[in-house]
Amino acid sequence: MADKKPLRVAMIGYGFMGAAHSQAWSVAPKFFDLPLRPELAVVVGRDAERAADVATRFGWESSATDWREVIRRDDIDLVDICAPGDTHAEIAIASLAAGKHVLCEKPLANSAQDAILMAEAAESALAAGVFAMVGFTYRRVPAISFARELVRSGRIGTLRRVQANYLQDWLVDENAPMTWRLDKTRAGSGSLGDIGAHAVDAVQFITGQTVSSVSGTLHTFVAERPLLGEGIGLGGTASDERGTVTVDDSALFTARLSDGALASFEATRFATGRKNAFRLEFSGSTGAVSFDLERMNELEFYDGTDAAGERGFRRILVTEPEHPYAAAWWPTGHGLGYEHAFSHQVRDLVLDIAAGRQPEPSFADGLQVQTVLEAIERSAASRSEWTTV
Amino acid sequence: MADKKPLRVAMIGYGFMGAAHSQAWSVAPKFFDLPLRPELAVVVGRDAERAADVATRFGWESSATDWREVIRRDDIDLVDICAPGDTHAEIAIASLAAGKHVLCEKPLANSAQDAILMAEAAESALAAGVFAMVGFTYRRVPAISFARELVRSGRIGTLRRVQANYLQDWLVDENAPMTWRLDKTRAGSGSLGDIGAHAVDAVQFITGQTVSSVSGTLHTFVAERPLLGEGIGLGGTASDERGTVTVDDSALFTARLSDGALASFEATRFATGRKNAFRLEFSGSTGAVSFDLERMNELEFYDGTDAAGERGFRRILVTEPEHPYAAAWWPTGHGLGYEHAFSHQVRDLVLDIAAGRQPEPSFADGLQVQTVLEAIERSAASRSEWTTV
Amino acid sequence: MADKKPLRVAMIGYGFMGAAHSQAWSVAPKFFDLPLRPELAVVVGRDAERAADVATRFGWESSATDWREVIRRDDIDLVDICAPGDTHAEIAIASLAAGKHVLCEKPLANSAQDAILMAEAAESALAAGVFAMVGFTYRRVPAISFARELVRSGRIGTLRRVQANYLQDWLVDENAPMTWRLDKTRAGSGSLGDIGAHAVDAVQFITGQTVSSVSGTLHTFVAERPLLGEGIGLGGTASDERGTVTVDDSALFTARLSDGALASFEATRFATGRKNAFRLEFSGSTGAVSFDLERMNELEFYDGTDAAGERGFRRILVTEPEHPYAAAWWPTGHGLGYEHAFSHQVRDLVLDIAAGRQPEPSFADGLQVQTVLEAIERSAASRSEWTTV
Amino acid sequence: MADKKPLRVAMIGYGFMGAAHSQAWSVAPKFFDLPLRPELAVVVGRDAERAADVATRFGWESSATDWREVIRRDDIDLVDICAPGDTHAEIAIASLAAGKHVLCEKPLANSAQDAILMAEAAESALAAGVFAMVGFTYRRVPAISFARELVRSGRIGTLRRVQANYLQDWLVDENAPMTWRLDKTRAGSGSLGDIGAHAVDAVQFITGQTVSSVSGTLHTFVAERPLLGEGIGLGGTASDERGTVTVDDSALFTARLSDGALASFEATRFATGRKNAFRLEFSGSTGAVSFDLERMNELEFYDGTDAAGERGFRRILVTEPEHPYAAAWWPTGHGLGYEHAFSHQVRDLVLDIAAGRQPEPSFADGLQVQTVLEAIERSAASRSEWTTV
Repeated sequence: MADKKPLRVAMIGYGFMGAAHSQAWSVAPKFFDLPLRPELAVVVGRDAERAADVATRFGWESSATDWREVIRRDDIDLVDICAPGDTHAEIAIASLAAGKHVLCEKPLANSAQDAILMAEAAESALAAGVFAMVGFTYRRVPAISFARELVRSGRIGTLRRVQANYLQDWLVDENAPMTWRLDKTRAGSGSLGDIGAHAVDAVQFITGQTVSSVSGTLHTFVAERPLLGEGIGLGGTASDERGTVTVDDSALFTARLSDGALASFEATRFATGRKNAFRLEFSGSTGAVSFDLERMNELEFYDGTDAAGERGFRRILVTEPEHPYAAAWWPTGHGLGYEHAFSHQVRDLVLDIAAGRQPEPSFADGLQVQTVLEAIERSAASRSEWTTV
Repeated sequence: MADKKPLRVAMIGYGFMGAAHSQAWSVAPKFFDLPLRPELAVVVGRDAERAADVATRFGWESSATDWREVIRRDDIDLVDICAPGDTHAEIAIASLAAGKHVLCEKPLANSAQDAILMAEAAESALAAGVFAMVGFTYRRVPAISFARELVRSGRIGTLRRVQANYLQDWLVDENAPMTWRLDKTRAGSGSLGDIGAHAVDAVQFITGQTVSSVSGTLHTFVAERPLLGEGIGLGGTASDERGTVTVDDSALFTARLSDGALASFEATRFATGRKNAFRLEFSGSTGAVSFDLERMNELEFYDGTDAAGERGFRRILVTEPEHPYAAAWWPTGHGLGYEHAFSHQVRDLVLDIAAGRQPEPSFADGLQVQTVLEAIERSAASRSEWTTV
Repeated sequence: MADKKPLRVAMIGYGFMGAAHSQAWSVAPKFFDLPLRPELAVVVGRDAERAADVATRFGWESSATDWREVIRRDDIDLVDICAPGDTHAEIAIASLAAGKHVLCEKPLANSAQDAILMAEAAESALAAGVFAMVGFTYRRVPAISFARELVRSGRIGTLRRVQANYLQDWLVDENAPMTWRLDKTRAGSGSLGDIGAHAVDAVQFITGQTVSSVSGTLHTFVAERPLLGEGIGLGGTASDERGTVTVDDSALFTARLSDGALASFEATRFATGRKNAFRLEFSGSTGAVSFDLERMNELEFYDGTDAAGERGFRRILVTEPEHPYAAAWWPTGHGLGYEHAFSHQVRDLVLDIAAGRQPEPSFADGLQVQTVLEAIERSAASRSEWTTV
Repeated sequence: MADKKPLRVAMIGYGFMGAAHSQAWSVAPKFFDLPLRPELAVVVGRDAERAADVATRFGWESSATDWREVIRRDDIDLVDICAPGDTHAEIAIASLAAGKHVLCEKPLANSAQDAILMAEAAESALAAGVFAMVGFTYRRVPAISFARELVRSGRIGTLRRVQANYLQDWLVDENAPMTWRLDKTRAGSGSLGDIGAHAVDAVQFITGQTVSSVSGTLHTFVAERPLLGEGIGLGGTASDERGTVTVDDSALFTARLSDGALASFEATRFATGRKNAFRLEFSGSTGAVSFDLERMNELEFYDGTDAAGERGFRRILVTEPEHPYAAAWWPTGHGLGYEHAFSHQVRDLVLDIAAGRQPEPSFADGLQVQTVLEAIERSAASRSEWTTV
């Protein structure tokens, strides 16, 4: 492995996404044969001390506070952007201009306008052999990737119906504090952009169809919350002051897909008792698949061509050598966790870079999801009228 | 029991609903102490031979073909209407005018206009001590009735979110034949009126809130089907000719409830692999309940006031003496089936008649559901715009 | 139906079994085409008033207190024995001698000696065209009957492993009162004879193999309990006096089946939280089936011949027309309850009587189960040594 | 972190256990604050090339082929033994004698004799501040650790019943090849020692009771198999020659625990369709907990003190900050995988070493499990007679 060409990575941002990405860059080369050798060169954060701590902890060679300086460095090949959405455009565009590959967390940007500029920058960079990828990481959960194989290979026949619910409950408590995720200027949108984006991407990824028109509703259940005292991650402690929630708590939308399927979506942080229940169901003319991220190692598959009387949803443990990514890990039946999908993302990205192949999802894909979200917002602003994407 | 006053019943219509109702009239007095003694006086159907056969089989004293004659008989106290929706209004109004109590299968009528007339007739009859009830039978599934108790008694706090999916798949096969259920003139509407009506009623029943506005989409996946040769029930064999499906295959709608909760609904006959999955979830500020008719003896309850770390959806087997209707049946853990709810409906109806009390759901309740369905149709015809009920 | 030959039934005993049997005799002819017309002639109980009440409630023509008189009546064709186990032998043998068909609740008798006499009586009666059947009713749960079809037709290959757990928890409370079920002289044995017997019969029924040797352990967790004040069914209120539990609370045994499979059994009333979890799993060389009575309308089937990567336990809703007994009832997906299996039992019994065919399970089958139970008791008394049946 | 004292590790053996251990040594310090800094010094294997490859891949500083040389090195603090069971005793005893801490994979040894020597060696080493731990890693699955908290803190009352099934199916195919796991001289025993040992340890760990006597049965379903051509892990390809399986395919045993609970165990590789279903259920006087390793992020808890009618098994997602180990990882609802327990094991071991505290499970604990397994073998050899441990 020592003789492989290195791929030197700079990561911008930390928080729990930074931990997941650090882990991925370190773990992927241990379980997959990669043509390049990722090197954790530098982690960048506004707070020098915390950045240094993350570097030490997760094995980055160094830390820094100024991403502009970092992307100018000759020894950096790839910039991995884990910072909040309002920073994505500037960092990504500058990095691509500097000839660095970019992996950018989703959603691509907080505004469609920014996303367009990013996609254009990626398009230009591509000509120079510089690649950009947006981190819709759930594509690399083995069960979701396997769902795609089943749907795309015709195992459920003609797709007609999709149900996608991304259910969380971390805002159910009216006194749960504000975080940057509830502030429109920093997060762009609420449940729609945070988890609804995952739902839109996963549905398009699995079906190979795009959302062509939508009818949507956005709703904020709790309009005012205590300001955040201190905290990292989704939680944190509350202060005495109160702030206004400027994003949606729940997004409900119906969509028509490009080949005629009808899909219903819900993205909500108010599904009491549901912690991370990203549920997907695809109903076709001869079968169906069903998934719940809370049981991420399982996929349910209904084969309508089984003998009459013997049909039923099969609970498949997606841990067999036949399943995407699974052979690299543990024996059959030994499950994977949340962060494994990040390692799979690194694997695929490195393979694509080495092969000179555009990784997926591209910034154009990210922009397209953004466009769908924006159409939902327009529909919501127009009494939920059907709106073309 | 022999000394109890009889309640003589005439049933109009047979088919599988007739079987369920016959069973209920016969079984309810065996397991519940009823103040009146139901007598299965006469079953009425257009086909004299089949009506006679149903009478013999299910223990009706006699059969007849002309419901008008039957409702004039002095010895009939109650008319139970199981015929298709397009006949409901005429039979119910005439029966009430003749001083007979009426139990009418849902949906109340095929048009809001008819439903209004029926509700007015019921209102008038009420003054004369004659009662009318509409058969939203699922209200009497113990788990649904128990869900109502939990929600209405504040066990989940302030209700915010509702998810209601009624999923069937009996039309997935493009060559499944036409039945009267796919003909708008006879069935009134498709999935919306057939199973969507159950969803609307159950949500309103459990929450105590009414649907105040809706945004809806109706869709027909398969527009043409072989005509039905011969058959009873949901199935049947196909003939060579083809007919046009004039009702919706799927109905998707979002609703605002009167006290501010937000609800998403789906009623579909195209959810491949889902046979009778009527799923309901209610998310409140301190808890949630979740139900699936395919597991009708279970209710899932999430108590957000449980100790931190010990919270989770509890799978409650709704077969304890504490649960609605359950004490009358078998020991704990011994489940009930589909038709038991019909016996519970008879029980409640007979108790109410004996007590001189309006049974629930009333025709006014049925009309209100009808009005919601009609608003959904209007919204669907207006590009899914939010529409006031 | 009126022109069919009647089959006049006398039922001995009431309690919740009497309710289930009454229901079955009344309901079976409504949903199945039976060649004979069952008539509920007389119910017999020691308490005249209660017997009369049961008669009125469940539609028996009359009631009586002396079973000996009743079985002498010319107008009785069949005696249905629902009384406690210590009365089975005397009633059954006398009834058969009087030329009456007999349906006898399980277990056949409280002692192997009695069971032998009963089987001999049944053998003699058979020559005279008089039939005896023992009520292992769970054989007629559609999912169990369907499991048998799958196993017997080779869908799971060579059977190797069986797991059978019958889990209840109604004795977990140390102050739950004594009932006749905890008194060895009346109940014969405890969990072993009550629910372990079901497990043994179901395993033999489904596999077609017999238990040939056993190693077993019996255990009583709570040796003394308050005496029962008043009560029917599994519950009841407690009095101040205390009695000694003389039966087992739990039975654990391992068994070798006649064709080489290895089976583990547990029958317990101390599985906290499990209300009626009769669980069966059959593992073969190419597949498996799994069942839980708490979800009695489902059967899980694992087909090892499915494509690699697509294998998983299928949750089959056993409500399709292809499934045993199911076509007689409701549309697909509409579940059945506990008492339906009793109706299926009546159906099969009546068909067999009309055809002059020995019904199954016969008294010989019941004796064989008894012999297995007795071998388990012997093994338990010999430090769990392997013991031949 | 750089200023922490290092803990230099030598790992003996690779295979999939080596991967899991390598990962743990590398990952644990990233997610947990450890008082020592683990350094991956050297990996040792018989095949120099493969050892070198593992070293490169997983970040070990170097590789070696002679463990005797390695344990003599001054710069090694801890020896981590992942080699097959027949090598454990020699390596562990020598390592302890050389003053190295030892982490030894389970089962401790292939014979009770070896295990005794190892426990004695550990006892002696302890006096010198040198620690030994046996790797019953499943203790560190958060849900299992949390089950222990619930049981030990009295949340289920007095424990009465335990059910433990460890179900796999990788030998169901009669032509699956021999591996060292099927050879008694190398593996010690079959399902009993491999997965039954996990079951015994987990039950004792969670309950705090020890197995005092057993009645057991061992069985080999397929006595002869093709010899293994080439392969790593549980699978591999077959050659033309055949070998004799000298270990058990299935182990069934009943056990009495020290405080009176009764437990049934099954460890099998013939549970068709079950991939890694390690299932545990603990039934107490006021509650129960239930676990399945195939859904390792969930624990089911039945609280018998919940209000009547509201009782049911709660599905707890063991991903809350209140749960063992969980706060170090991802937000609530984001699951962990198989290898995380290995990181938890490293965390606890390092904390104990730094604190000068005996880690658990000790070699004495490992020996005790070994003694239980040996008693089961004796019982199996004596017609399953109850045998004191």
